[in-house]
Amino acid sequence: MAKGAGMIHPLLATMLVVLTTDYPLSPEEADLFLRPAVEKSFNRISVDGDCSTNDTVILLANGASDATRTADLDAFFRDALQEVCDTLARQLVEDGEGVSVVLEIAVTGAVDDRQARAIAARIATSPLVKTAAYGRDPNWGRVLMAAGSAPWNGGLAELDPNRVQLSFNGTRVVSAGTPTGGDVDTSGKVCRIELDLGLGSGEASYLASDLSYDYVRINAEYTT
Amino acid sequence: MAKGAGMIHPLLATMLVVLTTDYPLSPEEADLFLRPAVEKSFNRISVDGDCSTNDTVILLANGASDATRTADLDAFFRDALQEVCDTLARQLVEDGEGVSVVLEIAVTGAVDDRQARAIAARIATSPLVKTAAYGRDPNWGRVLMAAGSAPWNGGLAELDPNRVQLSFNGTRVVSAGTPTGGDVDTSGKVCRIELDLGLGSGEASYLASDLSYDYVRINAEYTT
Repeated sequence: MAKGAGMIHPLLATMLVVLTTDYPLSPEEADLFLRPAVEKSFNRISVDGDCSTNDTVILLANGASDATRTADLDAFFRDALQEVCDTLARQLVEDGEGVSVVLEIAVTGAVDDRQARAIAARIATSPLVKTAAYGRDPNWGRVLMAAGSAPWNGGLAELDPNRVQLSFNGTRVVSAGTPTGGDVDTSGKVCRIELDLGLGSGEASYLASDLSYDYVRINAEYTT
Repeated sequence: MAKGAGMIHPLLATMLVVLTTDYPLSPEEADLFLRPAVEKSFNRISVDGDCSTNDTVILLANGASDATRTADLDAFFRDALQEVCDTLARQLVEDGEGVSVVLEIAVTGAVDDRQARAIAARIATSPLVKTAAYGRDPNWGRVLMAAGSAPWNGGLAELDPNRVQLSFNGTRVVSAGTPTGGDVDTSGKVCRIELDLGLGSGEASYLASDLSYDYVRINAEYTT
């Protein structure tokens, strides 16, 4: 079970998630299973880039299954937990305030996974990328702007424009830093942005939303 | 002379600024005068948090005044240059895409100036703070959310809620971490947000804009 709308850019802090299982786990074991699953799901989504003060993910395990734990069964549970977290995280974005398009952002070829994540998060939170998505415009310039302004090691991520490959919904739009003029279908409810930097083997993905009139309406008309 | 609209969050990169003077300066001297003036003006404004790839500030000095340089005259020039940069930077925000309110953000009492700047920049770029400003809502909760989620030393800035003081347009709304219920006049074209963290002597200011339907319209209807 998960609840979220705006203020969604969890760094575990208005997102509320409760997971239940009858798999037998001690509190310490539940923590060990839960943290990696959260890292790759709830901590990789963004509606508006704003963290809440009370994002919460709770895993309740009552052991009622009386299952006998084995390494195989643990692996099965780990995969199932990841799948549930991934599904709920995606639903949080799909149900986000004013969302009309879900952005699947995949960054590959970064220096390392941390750099890939910083770049994916910057693309996920760029108002210009998000308004372009709302306008159904495969705006490669805005994606590259965001990538090149990602914070990295106290400065900004350094990219080699000549190595950059970018696709929208599987259509290559930038190849070796040069626009291809590829014709992108942006009619769907999902926009997949795949950016390969050509620098290393780092990779990360992020799920984000577009920025629409409705997001502004919901958050400007609400008054404290 | 300065030109800007969106993609305004200069870290010197679509902002174009040209300053001219007849004060006699070598290129190296012009650089020494210009950098601190830019740091406190153009590098402290944000329309949408998105950096352009070609923000530019140029200072042209032709020496036509035939002035004799003195320490006093240099100090006068330094102040005049700062004032011109401050004025132009403010006009860039006032003329920003879809802007209806200018946010004057002043953070004091931070651990140091760098932390104050990180927190001011985070408030300046928060979609929830910016949509609240558009809705003319003195939403103290969103300001504190943004402050507490500012990136700082590889993690997040740590605040002591019990020490936090916050005012909107001179009316205290949070005192020692507790809402005062103060009645804020938000009818003007400027919203001044003063946040004192009570931790140290660090301070920084930022000028930012609200986030309106017009910002979304301008950036979603524009198609590449």
